[in-house]
Amino acid sequence: MELGLLYSGGKDSTLAALLLEEFYDVTLTTAQFGISDDWKHARKTAETAGFEFERLELDPDVADEAVEIIREDGFPRNGIQHVHLHALEELAERGFDAIADGTRRDDRVPTVSRAQAQSLEDRHDVDYIAPLSGFGRTAVDRLVESHLEVTVGPSEAIDRADYEAELRTLIAEEDGPAAVGDLFPDHEQTYVTDVR
Amino acid sequence: MELGLLYSGGKDSTLAALLLEEFYDVTLTTAQFGISDDWKHARKTAETAGFEFERLELDPDVADEAVEIIREDGFPRNGIQHVHLHALEELAERGFDAIADGTRRDDRVPTVSRAQAQSLEDRHDVDYIAPLSGFGRTAVDRLVESHLEVTVGPSEAIDRADYEAELRTLIAEEDGPAAVGDLFPDHEQTYVTDVR
Repeated sequence: MELGLLYSGGKDSTLAALLLEEFYDVTLTTAQFGISDDWKHARKTAETAGFEFERLELDPDVADEAVEIIREDGFPRNGIQHVHLHALEELAERGFDAIADGTRRDDRVPTVSRAQAQSLEDRHDVDYIAPLSGFGRTAVDRLVESHLEVTVGPSEAIDRADYEAELRTLIAEEDGPAAVGDLFPDHEQTYVTDVR
Repeated sequence: MELGLLYSGGKDSTLAALLLEEFYDVTLTTAQFGISDDWKHARKTAETAGFEFERLELDPDVADEAVEIIREDGFPRNGIQHVHLHALEELAERGFDAIADGTRRDDRVPTVSRAQAQSLEDRHDVDYIAPLSGFGRTAVDRLVESHLEVTVGPSEAIDRADYEAELRTLIAEEDGPAAVGDLFPDHEQTYVTDVR
């Protein structure tokens, strides 16, 4: 069975790929608006780990909508969620038997509710799988430590291809770099360099 | 890392074992009150599939409490849930690094909420993992078809070692066989005979 996994090059989506590869023919798909070239980092990790890779082009209007949501809220959570649901809809149109993402049990964003999952499956005749949704933070950290080689650092210094990076770039272009610091809390990100 | 998985011999818990075996040293543990010998069927499947197997003895008082709940409700859901949470508490005391069960995204019972999972982890210093909780019914069915050999039939004809079987036996002994038919809806169960 062919499965497309939304892939950022981060530890969660890489671990999700390892969990699924015994059961599916996994293609790592990195969603992007064409705002930056960060998707190339995800492609590099995908190639190093031996997975098929595809780009998934998103609707630029959705980036503008997400930025507007983030400006109004003053924090990025709902804007990132908006992009994630759009990315799953686009991925569901690609003809895979199943689609997946790297959302964890303890993630605040993005989250896909049971009702949203069922709706996605029914409308697109595809299975939606969140292989890490039954794993808590500690369990994920332990598996990452034993199976992945990662680089950790603050969000702005790490080369990964998540929506946040492109939305940060868009906001910096439109509102200036200071706006990014106001809207996005500092937190550490990880980028996977290899699998063991 | 050592992981103990609550195991019935059914398709969900067997599939959960296959998903986890790449990442953990999995021991299949069948919880039982000592009411019937159905746990031997689970042991047989565990041995056929090449997994370590242990019995997990539950508190007989919990079976009595569950039967009382089922009699009052007129349906088995909350009684089975009561036993499942007790079984997880007992399993968490066994010294595994992680414990797991076969609950699916679409299961109505048993279910373990995010708060219950976190509480279990914090109190017992153990990871709780529900590897199928990100899989819907169709995805599970497809994986079962490609990876397991199963026997399907009505609940009373299938040899598996879930709590329901022992609670049915207890109710039949105390209230007569007709009570079982009144309290437990007819539904088909599967028992795994081998993995592919």
